[in-house]
Amino acid sequence: MAKQKAFKPKARRPRGFEDRAASALRAERALVAAASQVYERWGFEPLETPAFEYADALGKFLPDADRPNEGVFALQDDDEQWMALRYDLTAPLARFAAEHFQDLAKPFRRYQYGEVWRNEKPGPGRFRQFVQCDADSVGAPGPAADAEMIALASEVMQASGLEAGEYVVRVNDRRLLDGVLERLGAAAQDKRLTVLRAIDKMDRLGRQGVELLLGAGRKDDSGDFTQGAGLEPEQIALVLDFLEAAGETRGGVIAALESHVGAGVGKAGLDALGEIDAILSALGVDEGGAVFDPSIVRGLGYYTGAVFETELLLTPHYPDGSPMQFGSVGSGGRYDDLVARFTGQAVPATGFSFGVSRFAAALTALGRLDAAAPDPLVVVIAAEKDRMAEYFQIASELRAAGLRAEAFVGGGNMGKQLKYADRRGAAMAVIIGSEEREKGEAQIKDLALGARLAAQIEDNKTWREDQPAQFTVKRDVLVSSIRRRLER
Amino acid sequence: MAKQKAFKPKARRPRGFEDRAASALRAERALVAAASQVYERWGFEPLETPAFEYADALGKFLPDADRPNEGVFALQDDDEQWMALRYDLTAPLARFAAEHFQDLAKPFRRYQYGEVWRNEKPGPGRFRQFVQCDADSVGAPGPAADAEMIALASEVMQASGLEAGEYVVRVNDRRLLDGVLERLGAAAQDKRLTVLRAIDKMDRLGRQGVELLLGAGRKDDSGDFTQGAGLEPEQIALVLDFLEAAGETRGGVIAALESHVGAGVGKAGLDALGEIDAILSALGVDEGGAVFDPSIVRGLGYYTGAVFETELLLTPHYPDGSPMQFGSVGSGGRYDDLVARFTGQAVPATGFSFGVSRFAAALTALGRLDAAAPDPLVVVIAAEKDRMAEYFQIASELRAAGLRAEAFVGGGNMGKQLKYADRRGAAMAVIIGSEEREKGEAQIKDLALGARLAAQIEDNKTWREDQPAQFTVKRDVLVSSIRRRLER
Repeated sequence: MAKQKAFKPKARRPRGFEDRAASALRAERALVAAASQVYERWGFEPLETPAFEYADALGKFLPDADRPNEGVFALQDDDEQWMALRYDLTAPLARFAAEHFQDLAKPFRRYQYGEVWRNEKPGPGRFRQFVQCDADSVGAPGPAADAEMIALASEVMQASGLEAGEYVVRVNDRRLLDGVLERLGAAAQDKRLTVLRAIDKMDRLGRQGVELLLGAGRKDDSGDFTQGAGLEPEQIALVLDFLEAAGETRGGVIAALESHVGAGVGKAGLDALGEIDAILSALGVDEGGAVFDPSIVRGLGYYTGAVFETELLLTPHYPDGSPMQFGSVGSGGRYDDLVARFTGQAVPATGFSFGVSRFAAALTALGRLDAAAPDPLVVVIAAEKDRMAEYFQIASELRAAGLRAEAFVGGGNMGKQLKYADRRGAAMAVIIGSEEREKGEAQIKDLALGARLAAQIEDNKTWREDQPAQFTVKRDVLVSSIRRRLER
Repeated sequence: MAKQKAFKPKARRPRGFEDRAASALRAERALVAAASQVYERWGFEPLETPAFEYADALGKFLPDADRPNEGVFALQDDDEQWMALRYDLTAPLARFAAEHFQDLAKPFRRYQYGEVWRNEKPGPGRFRQFVQCDADSVGAPGPAADAEMIALASEVMQASGLEAGEYVVRVNDRRLLDGVLERLGAAAQDKRLTVLRAIDKMDRLGRQGVELLLGAGRKDDSGDFTQGAGLEPEQIALVLDFLEAAGETRGGVIAALESHVGAGVGKAGLDALGEIDAILSALGVDEGGAVFDPSIVRGLGYYTGAVFETELLLTPHYPDGSPMQFGSVGSGGRYDDLVARFTGQAVPATGFSFGVSRFAAALTALGRLDAAAPDPLVVVIAAEKDRMAEYFQIASELRAAGLRAEAFVGGGNMGKQLKYADRRGAAMAVIIGSEEREKGEAQIKDLALGARLAAQIEDNKTWREDQPAQFTVKRDVLVSSIRRRLER
């Protein structure tokens, strides 16, 4: 092919997309497997929807828009319909549930993991494709189903290798704030979304920043001005008081919130938290594992009741020692209106979602997900190129003995091949040249030990002689010798 | 959201895309896990490249084309560069290998599974998104690496649950035909690709169809005419004789081919098959597992040497009894020029790829991949809505005992809930209403047994009394009773 074309493309990834290599993938897969096992055991079934949805089904577009707006990757199909790559796994679930509503056993409990795509400006650590892992119950009304989701999130944290006290699930109900706004009057209620967005920035901007955004607005460091919700000072004070209501226990928080949220929708939210509290306790999620926090909002517009996020209480560090910054490692809540977009009929639904790559990276940095490490590799050196059949046979014997093994199939002399084995992180290399073959022997290089010895400063002569990094065995005990050494 | 919009989108998938539900997914995942384990044990490392590549990197486009042509899903990035969703996993591997060539330990041995997209006219059973699973060695010259790929393909077939004699790998070397064409002269060599395409249709069109396509051309049933290669009748006869060269053993096929392929490039191909034969034997792939077949071509233009495909020798059937039609369930070969597209430097590479969904469907139809079945599910009925905490606790206890269990979180009375448990395929349902609670008891419905009993025509009164489909136990032995019954 190359010969037919003068044009030589540059080998590069599109901007904002990453290749994920072995160590990261192994960690991600271990995490997804652990979460999937939890979901399966809680009675959720796997589902995979396609990467594309019709743009209107994703809910980001007005039907008369000529071109899709920013945020998603969209293209027109042959029949002129706009399709877009999914930006999360919830919108496709809503489409699926609406499409098959009559045929589904309800509640429809499914989990799904897979890639999602965001057509955003790429930046350091901000990718335009990443993996999410979700579990949802569609057709599940009431706080019991929400409580189950929160307990599920907690169990996923534990299954990922975190221990009690290393994470917490922060739980709230959107209706509490609605109750507060109800008390503040119709004008405040009209500003609901702006108020929600302001509160959602508590983490990043602190109390003072939120105060500005609830009022006239806020100018950031770059000079950009964000219009505020325009609440009156006494209204702002009431909202801030509500956000800071606290208690020693979940029951204590509920008690502290009672005076803030009024008797209407806010009371309904508070009652829901009460039920959630009881079920969490029954499911063994104690006060350390899940707390109530009225400042939890979750940015997404579609939540209608309970909302929660899981927070890592440890700070993982990058290899260079700098801390990884985490908001939350997963979140969820109740969204009763999402299926109704299609059917016109409200369908109660609740779910939990986490971003796989970021969480896996954090767990790896924390030394969890150990099971993700591969078995040690043995490389059989191609000492004589016309003896490949023999080298393959040795690799095959090693695999039959339960090991990970390959015969070298690249080009280059023995030095190059040993360097390859080193770079692959192989534990051992096997060498059978003409000399060894004639004597019915094989040379074994313990590369892992060799590296340790080379790194050693003191003279450990005795130990070195006991366990030499290179030694010779009879061919017929080659496999058992390697196994024994690897089991040590 | 629904309230704010008058527009109600129709809930439907884009044309040619499918949702994959639990049973199919479990089979696919079991297959991918089995193949991955084989790849890992043979020393391959996982890699995931992004869904998008720059269109020029995929090699389907001329650099001056205004718009991408058919075949891929393409769109323009903000900076006007054309990106396209990958249509296979080989082109992204070539890009990755070229991009990181200096830093990779070579041979670069990676496996990758993931979605690929084809912008083709959808049809029954023809989807525009499907999952492939590939293993490749980049920087691996010579037939030894090809032989390894063939043995790997054979082991993947076995790991998927097929037994010896139920599949075969058909192996060829592209250079054999080149040798035949060399003997036929320059005019025939110029028609290489047309000849390859003609031979590739042997399966579908038979000897006569191929004969027409090697000559003047062929009109199909619809009246469409395909221009032929225009070979002379005696040239066609030589090609067909070559294609039909056969032997009892791999060595026998090599001997039969010797007179056809000439002394140049064809002889090199034949020598390669000889080496492959020896290594396959050393790796335990006998004459029944892999055969040499000069009619194997593989449509893809990029193969440069060994080519092979794995054929299923059993015929799986759809639930309605009609046979599933299979060409091959996987294929591979040597492609030494693909990385050179980027670097200008030939990089020897060889690989194996199979389509996951189709193969998994065939294996399921054949009753393989049994391990993919989920554990039996227990549904705890929400008999009294204000007792959810207790029901959750029971589900939690069942899970702690290693079972799969959920408390019912949907809406509806007990009848509806039992119907739900049935539709979910649950093995058991647990009922604790006020009556049972007061007595410290629980009712267990053995749904699986109930279904069997209901299906039974004869009167099995005694057995029915021995193992009633519904029975009551003390609450404190509920979990152990269920476990015991499920273990039976």
